[in-house]
Amino acid sequence: MFAGGKLLAEVFERLRQPAVVGELLAGVLLGPSLLGLVHPNDLTRGVAEMGAIFLLFAIGLETKPRDLQEVGWTAMLVAFLGVLLPFLLGFGYLKLLASSSVEAIFIGAAMVATSVGITARVLEDMGVLNSRVARVILGAAVIDDVLGMIVLAVVSSLSAGKVNYVSLAVVTVEAVGFTVLVVLFGSRLVGHMEPSVARLRARNSAFTLSILLCLGLSLASLYIGLAAIIGAFLAGLALAERSERWKLRENAHPLSEFLAPFFFVLLGAEVNLRTFLQPGLIVMLVVITILAILSKLLGCGLGSLRMGWKDAARVGIGMVPRGEVGLIVAAVGLRLHTISEGIYTVIVGMSILTTLFAPPVLKLTLAKRTAAPVFVSPES
Amino acid sequence: MFAGGKLLAEVFERLRQPAVVGELLAGVLLGPSLLGLVHPNDLTRGVAEMGAIFLLFAIGLETKPRDLQEVGWTAMLVAFLGVLLPFLLGFGYLKLLASSSVEAIFIGAAMVATSVGITARVLEDMGVLNSRVARVILGAAVIDDVLGMIVLAVVSSLSAGKVNYVSLAVVTVEAVGFTVLVVLFGSRLVGHMEPSVARLRARNSAFTLSILLCLGLSLASLYIGLAAIIGAFLAGLALAERSERWKLRENAHPLSEFLAPFFFVLLGAEVNLRTFLQPGLIVMLVVITILAILSKLLGCGLGSLRMGWKDAARVGIGMVPRGEVGLIVAAVGLRLHTISEGIYTVIVGMSILTTLFAPPVLKLTLAKRTAAPVFVSPES
Repeated sequence: MFAGGKLLAEVFERLRQPAVVGELLAGVLLGPSLLGLVHPNDLTRGVAEMGAIFLLFAIGLETKPRDLQEVGWTAMLVAFLGVLLPFLLGFGYLKLLASSSVEAIFIGAAMVATSVGITARVLEDMGVLNSRVARVILGAAVIDDVLGMIVLAVVSSLSAGKVNYVSLAVVTVEAVGFTVLVVLFGSRLVGHMEPSVARLRARNSAFTLSILLCLGLSLASLYIGLAAIIGAFLAGLALAERSERWKLRENAHPLSEFLAPFFFVLLGAEVNLRTFLQPGLIVMLVVITILAILSKLLGCGLGSLRMGWKDAARVGIGMVPRGEVGLIVAAVGLRLHTISEGIYTVIVGMSILTTLFAPPVLKLTLAKRTAAPVFVSPES
Repeated sequence: MFAGGKLLAEVFERLRQPAVVGELLAGVLLGPSLLGLVHPNDLTRGVAEMGAIFLLFAIGLETKPRDLQEVGWTAMLVAFLGVLLPFLLGFGYLKLLASSSVEAIFIGAAMVATSVGITARVLEDMGVLNSRVARVILGAAVIDDVLGMIVLAVVSSLSAGKVNYVSLAVVTVEAVGFTVLVVLFGSRLVGHMEPSVARLRARNSAFTLSILLCLGLSLASLYIGLAAIIGAFLAGLALAERSERWKLRENAHPLSEFLAPFFFVLLGAEVNLRTFLQPGLIVMLVVITILAILSKLLGCGLGSLRMGWKDAARVGIGMVPRGEVGLIVAAVGLRLHTISEGIYTVIVGMSILTTLFAPPVLKLTLAKRTAAPVFVSPES
């Protein structure tokens, strides 16, 4: 799984495409629908779950709560509209197809979260990471991730069948409360722990404690009915301020780098290509992908309209790729048996397509930037 | 498993005892014979196996083949006699008890390898890491590890029942050949790969390739009938020269630090305390432990006798602790069903006891050093 994932990741890097798409396709290739070399079982699921936990932990470590408070109203508006519109369009389309409410909510949720990594990589490649557009995109993507987590928290509590709106409200309050508590007080609490960390005898004890916090909050999430990775993400968030001093990034990175490919390859392996034999699903994939692109373009563009329509378009395009979080929503749904194999395959397909869509288009619109240097105002 | 292991590891560090003993005891405590919270199953075994692989990979990374060639004849002699005597005594004792040859060979093999880590830690704590005694101990422990790996390679090919001496000879040749080949040419081969590593696009590609080499050689070991961890150790050995430049140590360390506790905790969990209800086993544990201590004292002391009997005694004591490798031999034997649960428990018990024995005694003999400063000759 690791070798296959990394091989296709390298191929995709060389094609200037996101590595994560390579890992997913490696999974599709190795999985039961084609070569049959990788099978979802207790061991691969467990390792993949650990991969998702450390991936989200590492992402959390890069997300400083302080930055969230600084990004300003534009990013906030971009994030909110960029979450609302995709959710409503996805939900609405599935209700139109007479799907169950739970499935409709899952599709909506999977369409919500932007993958920060892919867009950041493109912006870095183009050398515009300090431009205003980039800062709005990155700020919005971070808020978007937190909102996506809350949405995931809510949907992960849904069991198959009907939606119980009362318990939905309870879980929403729990999820929002848990997130807000950790964002507001987690970092301060970790600060209070600092003196006792210094007193521990074990080598690299700060890292050990961070893993314990990560696993502990993951368990706590499970306990209050949320997905484990939400706890992992929040643990990362709470530790982000100390990430440099405690060398957490250097330590957590190898873990997520080794384990995360198992997650993505298994996600790919769980795609059943045979479901595409139902012609309706291909149509659904196309429609969902178009809705996913349009909803972010419109929602995020609308949120950033006061930057001028060109920059608004760039922000919209930059927010299109769905990556990890959408895939995680799909995986949670599949494992809880709340979404069908067909819907799962559609979500994975949509994630791959939107991820492939954004980089070239974003590069195209950013390339024009050099012709209009007015746009370069990193300190404005 | 991680939390329990790390908690008892910290307790043992505070008692100035080896952390690994804490992790083992956490496993005994959490395992089916006491609390019943940890069960050996596909997932825990898989993660533990990954832990053993990355542990041995990390140990290999610290073992530069060049150092092996430099340690001189004293260390070589200490290592050889320190391997031969324990093996013969362990094997002989079990044959005396009329055990099968395979079980006798496994006990012998588990008594062979010194745990470098624990002794090095004590020497470091005492500030004598540069003394002649320390250099002989560390050099011998490294050779000892390689010899232990070869012995493990040979025994891991034994299936239950009778020993086929022809196939034993074939495996010995294979194991020695594989090891010698990797030690002699692995490092050079990795050197030839260096230019192509620089050409890869993926982030941290040197680390990815190292993991691939580690997993690849592990698979190769399995394929030729050896234990997977031997390949992992040899991969580490081959990469040791480039460990600093490629930042492999920094990257491999978090992996082994997170995953190895699962290995030790599971080893502990597989101890069945009820087997001690057979009074014969307690006697056996005591005898085996005494043999394990005496055989290293005699073998290694004899090998270093020309350093004077005091230093020879220190070398002997420093080589007593059996750790990881002995435990790995036991785990391999248990999984292949070639040793009984009782023998497994005896081996784990012996490893714990010898590991607890060495640090205080070594400290005692080294403390006299300050009274006899003649001994301090770091450059002699």
